[in-house]
Amino acid sequence: MKRPTIADIARRAGVSKVAVSYALNDRPGVSEARRAAIKAIAEEIGWRPNSAARALSGARARSVGLTLCRPARILGVEPFFMELISGIEGELADRSYALMLQVAATPEQEAEVHRRWWGERRVDGAILVDLRFDDPRVSALEELGLPAVVIGHPSQAGALTPVWSDDAAAVRETVEYLAALGHRRIARVAGLPELVHTVLRDQAFTAVCEELGLEQHAIMHTDYTGGEGARATRRLLGSPTRPTAVVYDNDIMAVAGMSAAQEMRLDVPGDLSIVAWDDSPLSQIVRPALSALTRDIPAYGAHAARALLALIGGELVEGVRDEDARLVPRGSTAPPPPRRP
Amino acid sequence: MKRPTIADIARRAGVSKVAVSYALNDRPGVSEARRAAIKAIAEEIGWRPNSAARALSGARARSVGLTLCRPARILGVEPFFMELISGIEGELADRSYALMLQVAATPEQEAEVHRRWWGERRVDGAILVDLRFDDPRVSALEELGLPAVVIGHPSQAGALTPVWSDDAAAVRETVEYLAALGHRRIARVAGLPELVHTVLRDQAFTAVCEELGLEQHAIMHTDYTGGEGARATRRLLGSPTRPTAVVYDNDIMAVAGMSAAQEMRLDVPGDLSIVAWDDSPLSQIVRPALSALTRDIPAYGAHAARALLALIGGELVEGVRDEDARLVPRGSTAPPPPRRP
Repeated sequence: MKRPTIADIARRAGVSKVAVSYALNDRPGVSEARRAAIKAIAEEIGWRPNSAARALSGARARSVGLTLCRPARILGVEPFFMELISGIEGELADRSYALMLQVAATPEQEAEVHRRWWGERRVDGAILVDLRFDDPRVSALEELGLPAVVIGHPSQAGALTPVWSDDAAAVRETVEYLAALGHRRIARVAGLPELVHTVLRDQAFTAVCEELGLEQHAIMHTDYTGGEGARATRRLLGSPTRPTAVVYDNDIMAVAGMSAAQEMRLDVPGDLSIVAWDDSPLSQIVRPALSALTRDIPAYGAHAARALLALIGGELVEGVRDEDARLVPRGSTAPPPPRRP
Repeated sequence: MKRPTIADIARRAGVSKVAVSYALNDRPGVSEARRAAIKAIAEEIGWRPNSAARALSGARARSVGLTLCRPARILGVEPFFMELISGIEGELADRSYALMLQVAATPEQEAEVHRRWWGERRVDGAILVDLRFDDPRVSALEELGLPAVVIGHPSQAGALTPVWSDDAAAVRETVEYLAALGHRRIARVAGLPELVHTVLRDQAFTAVCEELGLEQHAIMHTDYTGGEGARATRRLLGSPTRPTAVVYDNDIMAVAGMSAAQEMRLDVPGDLSIVAWDDSPLSQIVRPALSALTRDIPAYGAHAARALLALIGGELVEGVRDEDARLVPRGSTAPPPPRRP
């Protein structure tokens, strides 16, 4: 522990600690020349105002908490989280805010982490991801009165500030595109059914398929891993009335699904069209390149961080609707194969 | 701001704030019954000791700093960082330590972030990744006297504690395996040349190829993206004496390289063998599945966190050599094609 203190500065400058405090806090009581000299010494020895002292005196912690609740090995699979964190981080760093990160086993544990951070004055606000129905984190943060942003749909964000994009619009665009290509049997390989955005996508998918009078539509839920994506694909393709197009809830499942189809000697896109959601560098390096729903994830994170900083600053932020994901057709989608008579 | 305070507890319990303080700090001055009643109220209203007050009184910040210095869009590409962070996080959470994360533009900026965090008593220690030669972060942390772990080779870790694995051994295992299959022209598509581990792998690669008397060996450096991996592959395969095996410094470049080879009508593994380093779920879902150098990245992160917590606790930790990456042959490696006469 050799962090420089006010006493070190006082010793070097040959003045009292009170004089150093006056000088560094820009209060009267020392001459301008002495103030400059004291500040120069502080700079030289690398003195910084102690964050603990500032927090005690009512100043801010200048950090923001983010918890994640997925197993370590699954977190690494999707580029989504690291891109989101990068975006959050960039915005925070510009304002000298730090990000506190913790991985928890359940949403209840996440709520407990936020409660502890807030109680200990380690954070000024929180960001929630992977919103659930009746989410225990939402009620916990409402109760604490902690400034918080929910990356998720407003309908489940309670009194917290939602930052969201309209998944239903993206589902509609995708299904309409596939139907326009001629597909009449479409499946959706979805993520975790307890997440709000999964259910909203499920509902929109079913509604649009029915509206368009499609012959068949199916939904299978997974844990977002390539293994489950491949398994769902094999089950779908093993049916006598197999789908001619599948939409996947992440990039890694879409790639795994394509491999599974190819192993079953089906051609992509000749026999099966594939769409990935979200897009990622991975979608673009496989062959055929994957048609995908794309959006700027780092920007999404940045918008969430900006909304939270505004809340912390005492502004009223009603919610931020981010851009919808856009469909980028690439080589993995085409008209369905001709019908057998 | 409605965080519960000692005053709130005192009001509810009908005692003085001093009595509450005695009770919560397990000091004499209150009866056992009253102490229990006060603690029950503190628990009920969610009171927590203020981290700022504890830090001021010389207690620890109970958090650890990690900085990253890669562009946001590149960070998301590799599963490596999220897996490493998950591993670090798991170990920290078990000890109620938080992780402070910041993305910086340069190693100098990273050093500045650590200097600020330490000066402001926001962290008790630091973890460095992506070690460079003459790394400005190493000298900065040595100077601060901040407990720190370097995930990287001991030769460049200065006085800091290294947590590392022997990349040279993994390179040797890979090249010897490919040579045993009959390959005489092997290339390496490497990452950033300014990183220590890239150079150590380069040196080991050249040394083993020469020792085995291989006909040809080449190294190309990239920024770890699929785009550069594909470009390097196309350049290598465009040569009249093209390599029959390529080893890539990450999974995403190996997949991109395989796609590039297939676009040039080369069969993997018939015409070209491919090895990925590190392994990832991605390596296993593409077809053919990629032969890869695999290691437990979350465990690597956990070991680094454990070493750092020991250092913070005042223990002497000399360094931790983690397990070497192991070669897992899958479908992307085979003997080279027969020689043209």
